[in-house]
Amino acid sequence: MRSHRQEVWFQVPTRRAFINITRDVQAAVRESGIQEGLCRVNAMHITASVFINDDEPGLHRDDERSLEDLAPHGPSTGTITTSPEKTYGDGHLKRQIMGRSVMIAITNAQLDFGPWEQTF
Amino acid sequence: MRSHRQEVWFQVPTRRAFINITRDVQAAVRESGIQEGLCRVNAMHITASVFINDDEPGLHRDDERSLEDLAPHGPSTGTITTSPEKTYGDGHLKRQIMGRSVMIAITNAQLDFGPWEQTF
Amino acid sequence: MRSHRQEVWFQVPTRRAFINITRDVQAAVRESGIQEGLCRVNAMHITASVFINDDEPGLHRDDERSLEDLAPHGPSTGTITTSPEKTYGDGHLKRQIMGRSVMIAITNAQLDFGPWEQTF
Repeated sequence: MRSHRQEVWFQVPTRRAFINITRDVQAAVRESGIQEGLCRVNAMHITASVFINDDEPGLHRDDERSLEDLAPHGPSTGTITTSPEKTYGDGHLKRQIMGRSVMIAITNAQLDFGPWEQTF
Repeated sequence: MRSHRQEVWFQVPTRRAFINITRDVQAAVRESGIQEGLCRVNAMHITASVFINDDEPGLHRDDERSLEDLAPHGPSTGTITTSPEKTYGDGHLKRQIMGRSVMIAITNAQLDFGPWEQTF
Repeated sequence: MRSHRQEVWFQVPTRRAFINITRDVQAAVRESGIQEGLCRVNAMHITASVFINDDEPGLHRDDERSLEDLAPHGPSTGTITTSPEKTYGDGHLKRQIMGRSVMIAITNAQLDFGPWEQTF
């Protein structure tokens, strides 16, 4: 079985951001030379998420509002109350809701997406 | 590596529905002839979800209520306020919570499920 | 394609628990002899979840609180009102939020995790 691994790093200036990485993923698939297979994309940081949805600014604002409703930024119950981790305890929960990773079928060397699907 | 791809289409008369597709998935696995492997099932529309849980009507009513609590149907913050998309902005969020897709191990040509697991 | 399957069983004395199974998963990968591939870990019970996050007690308390906020323990709308299932209807919803399963890339016979990622 052929395999290919690639890391992509992002510097995000804001507290939270939606980054469309579909082209990065497609480029990695092209580089792998794989025609039929599975493409795994996962975050490697515990407050980051990889998910698939439409690339529409209004949708991202809805997501922001929804995530803040479901897992609000605020004090966590962490053991070390002075830990700077306290400030991003909500990020762990938000990742849990949005999901750590996606798996995308590769068909004819392309990401096998529905018409509006993009990877963030 | 052997691969097999199949599309299944559904016409759903109601706004939202729980469709048990376990037999469709099993049929596709049978057709593939794969004995040991992985079966990827994903929605290709951005307001649809594929998930695995029990097939129990009460559970589906709980799911409906819970999804409406977590991602209520209502005005979205989409850029084009007159867009008909506004009416299903909540569908994007509900998909995020329920998940886009599942991966099922294939063992001895069968979906390797726990005793109550079904695919929807 | 080489494949390897292993079941792990847990007896949990409490209503809910966070069990770090990273070593069990690593042991199964070692036993499989697979160098590059994919490791699927899924719950087989419909009220259990497998997920990847940090192993930090404060985070687990945050998760507990958040899950109780999002999918509170309480009466379900199940068809058979006297069913003992009523008492764990929330477990189905909590599983939906936390996710049924994870897929982990295997690189050089190791789980290809970010620095803080652990499997629960």
